[in-house]
Amino acid sequence: MALREETEQETGAPPPGRRPTTRLGVGMVGYAFMGAAHSQGWRTAGHVFDLPADPVLAAICGRDRTAVEAAAARHGWAAAETDWRALIARDDVHLVDICTPGESHAEIAVAALEAGKHVLCEKPLANSVAEAEAMAAAAERAAARGQVAIVGFNYRKVPALTYARGLVADGRLGALRHIRATYLQDWLVDPEAPLTWRLKRERAGSGALGDLGAHIVDLAQYLAGEPLVGVSAVSETFVRERPLPAGPAGTADRTARGAVTVDDAALFTGRLASGALASFEASRMAAGRKNALRLEINGELGSLAFDLERLNELSFHDHTEPAVTAGFRRILVTEPGHPYLEAWWPPGHGLGYEHTFVHQARDVVRTIAEGLPPEPSFADGLQVQRVLAAVEESAARNSVHTPVPFQEVP
Amino acid sequence: MALREETEQETGAPPPGRRPTTRLGVGMVGYAFMGAAHSQGWRTAGHVFDLPADPVLAAICGRDRTAVEAAAARHGWAAAETDWRALIARDDVHLVDICTPGESHAEIAVAALEAGKHVLCEKPLANSVAEAEAMAAAAERAAARGQVAIVGFNYRKVPALTYARGLVADGRLGALRHIRATYLQDWLVDPEAPLTWRLKRERAGSGALGDLGAHIVDLAQYLAGEPLVGVSAVSETFVRERPLPAGPAGTADRTARGAVTVDDAALFTGRLASGALASFEASRMAAGRKNALRLEINGELGSLAFDLERLNELSFHDHTEPAVTAGFRRILVTEPGHPYLEAWWPPGHGLGYEHTFVHQARDVVRTIAEGLPPEPSFADGLQVQRVLAAVEESAARNSVHTPVPFQEVP
Amino acid sequence: MALREETEQETGAPPPGRRPTTRLGVGMVGYAFMGAAHSQGWRTAGHVFDLPADPVLAAICGRDRTAVEAAAARHGWAAAETDWRALIARDDVHLVDICTPGESHAEIAVAALEAGKHVLCEKPLANSVAEAEAMAAAAERAAARGQVAIVGFNYRKVPALTYARGLVADGRLGALRHIRATYLQDWLVDPEAPLTWRLKRERAGSGALGDLGAHIVDLAQYLAGEPLVGVSAVSETFVRERPLPAGPAGTADRTARGAVTVDDAALFTGRLASGALASFEASRMAAGRKNALRLEINGELGSLAFDLERLNELSFHDHTEPAVTAGFRRILVTEPGHPYLEAWWPPGHGLGYEHTFVHQARDVVRTIAEGLPPEPSFADGLQVQRVLAAVEESAARNSVHTPVPFQEVP
Amino acid sequence: MALREETEQETGAPPPGRRPTTRLGVGMVGYAFMGAAHSQGWRTAGHVFDLPADPVLAAICGRDRTAVEAAAARHGWAAAETDWRALIARDDVHLVDICTPGESHAEIAVAALEAGKHVLCEKPLANSVAEAEAMAAAAERAAARGQVAIVGFNYRKVPALTYARGLVADGRLGALRHIRATYLQDWLVDPEAPLTWRLKRERAGSGALGDLGAHIVDLAQYLAGEPLVGVSAVSETFVRERPLPAGPAGTADRTARGAVTVDDAALFTGRLASGALASFEASRMAAGRKNALRLEINGELGSLAFDLERLNELSFHDHTEPAVTAGFRRILVTEPGHPYLEAWWPPGHGLGYEHTFVHQARDVVRTIAEGLPPEPSFADGLQVQRVLAAVEESAARNSVHTPVPFQEVP
Repeated sequence: MALREETEQETGAPPPGRRPTTRLGVGMVGYAFMGAAHSQGWRTAGHVFDLPADPVLAAICGRDRTAVEAAAARHGWAAAETDWRALIARDDVHLVDICTPGESHAEIAVAALEAGKHVLCEKPLANSVAEAEAMAAAAERAAARGQVAIVGFNYRKVPALTYARGLVADGRLGALRHIRATYLQDWLVDPEAPLTWRLKRERAGSGALGDLGAHIVDLAQYLAGEPLVGVSAVSETFVRERPLPAGPAGTADRTARGAVTVDDAALFTGRLASGALASFEASRMAAGRKNALRLEINGELGSLAFDLERLNELSFHDHTEPAVTAGFRRILVTEPGHPYLEAWWPPGHGLGYEHTFVHQARDVVRTIAEGLPPEPSFADGLQVQRVLAAVEESAARNSVHTPVPFQEVP
Repeated sequence: MALREETEQETGAPPPGRRPTTRLGVGMVGYAFMGAAHSQGWRTAGHVFDLPADPVLAAICGRDRTAVEAAAARHGWAAAETDWRALIARDDVHLVDICTPGESHAEIAVAALEAGKHVLCEKPLANSVAEAEAMAAAAERAAARGQVAIVGFNYRKVPALTYARGLVADGRLGALRHIRATYLQDWLVDPEAPLTWRLKRERAGSGALGDLGAHIVDLAQYLAGEPLVGVSAVSETFVRERPLPAGPAGTADRTARGAVTVDDAALFTGRLASGALASFEASRMAAGRKNALRLEINGELGSLAFDLERLNELSFHDHTEPAVTAGFRRILVTEPGHPYLEAWWPPGHGLGYEHTFVHQARDVVRTIAEGLPPEPSFADGLQVQRVLAAVEESAARNSVHTPVPFQEVP
Repeated sequence: MALREETEQETGAPPPGRRPTTRLGVGMVGYAFMGAAHSQGWRTAGHVFDLPADPVLAAICGRDRTAVEAAAARHGWAAAETDWRALIARDDVHLVDICTPGESHAEIAVAALEAGKHVLCEKPLANSVAEAEAMAAAAERAAARGQVAIVGFNYRKVPALTYARGLVADGRLGALRHIRATYLQDWLVDPEAPLTWRLKRERAGSGALGDLGAHIVDLAQYLAGEPLVGVSAVSETFVRERPLPAGPAGTADRTARGAVTVDDAALFTGRLASGALASFEASRMAAGRKNALRLEINGELGSLAFDLERLNELSFHDHTEPAVTAGFRRILVTEPGHPYLEAWWPPGHGLGYEHTFVHQARDVVRTIAEGLPPEPSFADGLQVQRVLAAVEESAARNSVHTPVPFQEVP
Repeated sequence: MALREETEQETGAPPPGRRPTTRLGVGMVGYAFMGAAHSQGWRTAGHVFDLPADPVLAAICGRDRTAVEAAAARHGWAAAETDWRALIARDDVHLVDICTPGESHAEIAVAALEAGKHVLCEKPLANSVAEAEAMAAAAERAAARGQVAIVGFNYRKVPALTYARGLVADGRLGALRHIRATYLQDWLVDPEAPLTWRLKRERAGSGALGDLGAHIVDLAQYLAGEPLVGVSAVSETFVRERPLPAGPAGTADRTARGAVTVDDAALFTGRLASGALASFEASRMAAGRKNALRLEINGELGSLAFDLERLNELSFHDHTEPAVTAGFRRILVTEPGHPYLEAWWPPGHGLGYEHTFVHQARDVVRTIAEGLPPEPSFADGLQVQRVLAAVEESAARNSVHTPVPFQEVP
């Protein structure tokens, strides 16, 4: 204990209790990495934030009964299902949380929305623009019935990035000139890393582009508050064959090999609607970079810089300062006045990756209970999908500048 | 979702389920900042780690019934008590978790141990050496009966620091020469910050020394694997009167003022048993430093550096490298091979402050269930208390070098 | 004095004296920023390094007699000329050092080479590929006569980058996957910054592209040891009119305005001969970035990172290390075993920007005196020019991937 | 060339020429590391700054004729002497620059002042308080005759630190609370490093204390603008025997060993006149730290941080900013408005260690020519000496707090 808060002995004031009597039953499909992260979010949000409804971990769904029951026990879900249609059909499920690979997003999400459920869907929204369009259209129809559809771009919920958006929206950067964004990992540097579903186009849609690039495209548009209107891209698959996975998850059978059918890396430049220039790089082949989502935005009045490997920090340069005292300042985004921080720890006591899912859970609950506009919406997810498609088209067409269609969901 | 793990669809292998049938009932006294943090630890550990027993949030205790019931609801405790003796007496409480100010630690801990309960006690262990000695003696007696007593030096559970201890123990630093440790905060820079219980000697024991200094003394001894044998100290109270708190916690009544009776800052040098030199600084008056627990250790073969504001990183200099390629390397302590990390997220997806409490909960459960030696033990807490007392004695005696008695608990 | 070296009193050993009896007369054209920097290089190199010939600051040339005589006095040149042809013709000038804007490089360099002089020419080599080809051809002919022609890509002479090249050449990075390079400044963020010659195409050739982009293109090819074979580019001029300069250099006449005819920023992706992907960004509109030439190279066995704003440091990640101890290490490139460092200060006593010109002077003198291959050669400069031309062509043609012709100078 | 300055072709305005007709003859004693650094300062200052007098490298002095003549040739001195009394006697020497070990400072400095010469003396001023007092008294007498005596605390001339002093003096930090200063190197980590004169008390006075500690004591007092009034210290010699040097400087004879008679490390706390607390650590045994002079100052309104290994940067936290946008900002101290920078390169084009000697040369020349108060004066050097003596006394007396006498030079 190294801090400043008071006990009740001091003040006699009771801490705020737990008020909601409404319950929001959550049904989650998938229970791998994202399932674990979402579970932690659902379990924790109500203990930290004052929520207008109580999220309840009603049921979890996976195809293998033994495995899904073990996951339910591990992650704290009250029931287990092996058919996502059965999950959707449950009366105690009000929200369907989709944590499966991209190939099944559209089918599950549309069915859930049609069934009158709210939906939280992992990113990227879908494996194609057509699927994403169908999903956005379903979300639009459902919205008219009071349902919420949100896409899980969880990095918008990093307090430093939420706060960064506020600084841009408040005009602290002035007219934007540049965005540069990289998302670098290194788990495919080893040519003997196994050929998992993430390396197959039919399952994952794309490689680094959809997995990592989708995040930085979304963040660029979110932070700038405007869409990309065109891109020019290159991509590469450096290691074209990898050993098939064998036995327990993640280990490789070194004798049998299969083709990698997605990109290892994708680079693209782009233009924002305002005329600002952007550059993007997504790669799983950057040795030593573990989760290096780095962003920099330069405007006429200031600049911002961020690195996900140091997610409690935001660098801000105020160009209106006198030159002799100006410089990028390292803001520890852990003050009570920063987004989400009122509910957490004292200044300097940092948060981690998983807190983005707690914040996402809070925001989903509030959006549903208070009738707020969904954010990020399926329309936002569709817009990202259009950018990814334009990137793939440009890469296939000799990098030629490729417009990103931008239109309202009908 | 930006990662590499496999779903069960890929491999057919079920995730490890939740096996324990043993339940470990926890009763917690106090529910302010530390109570919230400990609650998060108890709630989460079993969902993340494979534990030999299930921690159950049985009951929480505080003096004000309304407040403690609200806290129970908020933090997920099954019952509420207003008398800590009643809490100890409950059959469903096997472990008493003490999160109160230091003045009550000794009485509660000794009583709980005498009543046959395991104890986890927040740091510093006590407000005086005499209290700490009584507690360590009680722990020693209880150990003979199979009970566990652990002191909550949670920063030992930061993976980077646990790992640092391993590097030192493995001899990667060789003979130690220097430890330098600071723990700097800035919440008392403002002379109008209110006079809370933390600024009163009778409640808190000491100021920055016990609150912050205790952590860095413990870490220095933990990382080095040897005790401090003497210290020389200065301390200061820069702002000697502050407004009394008024109304809700943390706000100040600007008209009435009271005396600050603890230190704002304490600095001391010390010698370790091996002859290495150490320096320490604890302050709540370091503007801009929010939670700057910084450590550096220099040995004949290498050095380590750490900053709690970037807790996922450890800097390591290997002095056996050729000079032209040597340098402090920034290790992201987020690899599966790092302590505690096998249960968390993929590389680079960092943890936060509260994870130390999840790790502490895991270690407490395992220590009890598997009969491991308690760590950090009450004897460790007593040793820290002796250092703090020697610091105060030296500061009161013109900084003269003051030996730290070191002896086994009888 | 805070260091370790010995005085002669200790050892009796004399410091190495100054041996060369050969003199290398330098004649410099231009005396603005680059002239000052080159002067410092020529004045200093012989006092620091053991050189095989003594550089002598023979004559400096500029069009205005008063100004050039003042510059000669200021910078330590023995004589002043107002006609560069006269400078070339001087018997005491053996090397012509060209520090003028790009428009005059070709004419002066070719004339100097034809006149039998060695040439050091500032970068970019020329304002067009045609000019650069003529220069490279002249250099080739002159080489046959024993003359040296070198282009002033001074950043190759930053010890950290020279050392980085060595690590790549030694295979410490393995097969290269990525290079990302930015060179960001902010002196054009202010829309009222004046319209200097650097913003006019007819004088400067291009804007950020030639000024900043040329450096990072050269460094990428130098560090990788292979050429770029194609690029895809966008560029922009954000502020299209600026006030004309009025009165003393750098001040603006706010009433009269003129058109900016070069780029404010240029972004491009590229492929190296080996298949590695590269990204580049040059901008003078990145608020808060003063001289941010940042490079990162990722290979199969390791990675390097560098930032010119911290030029004494090189970050190196050795991917062959165990994952738990691996990380980017900050090498202070100030050890005696690092390039150029044997002649400078003890470890940790860093160098600055201008030292690149001292090193360049050393290398030019040694190349001439010892008959070494010129590096960077005019052929290297031509190759950079071809990349710049391909960038401009791609930017003009909708970013389409544009091959970079690569051929030996005939 | 990557910048913004104009050539004369653009503006017609001549660069400022070299005006001084006065010459200041410098005679330097000693030519090891400090001699090389001072030479670079004297050679360069007049080419960069507008000076009121021309420094002339008149003569250099050392005991070995061959060695000193080689040094004269290498470093650009017009003449060589083997007797410092002869050097002082030369008519062309107006300023004596003392770069010898501390044992001879007092004798040479007093003789030079008595002979009517200005003096620049390396730090620490002397090997004892008595010597320093004699020197300060001689300086006082000489000042009455218009002579200047300056001590070579060159780090005051790092632009970031000069600027830091200005921020403190301007009240940007408010009342000071803390100074913490370390100066860490690692060249004695290896127990086989040879026993040079720096490790013998009779030559060097003390070890890390005088060599490194003197710098941080001076800087603390300089930056704070107030003296230390008392200290409490520990020191240690970790390696008590080392091989004797053999043959060329710096190599060791591994068979013969001698005693180290100075400290490897010294740590001390202190109080400033205002009541602020300070901590200091000087060590040559900190593996991986090459030249880590690190300073932090915390005041009621703000904080500063500095690291000599990144000497172009100053970190500044403005505590009057709103908490949500406050943070340590990294000021690149390379703007035209920063101290000394008007004469150097464009923003972001950093300086190095040796520039402190160019700035020192500039300041010495200006002080002499313009009758400015000497800074740092011999009285400043004496004050540092008193602190060092109090540190040694405290370390010898069980770390007891030891007052630092503070009095005007009589």
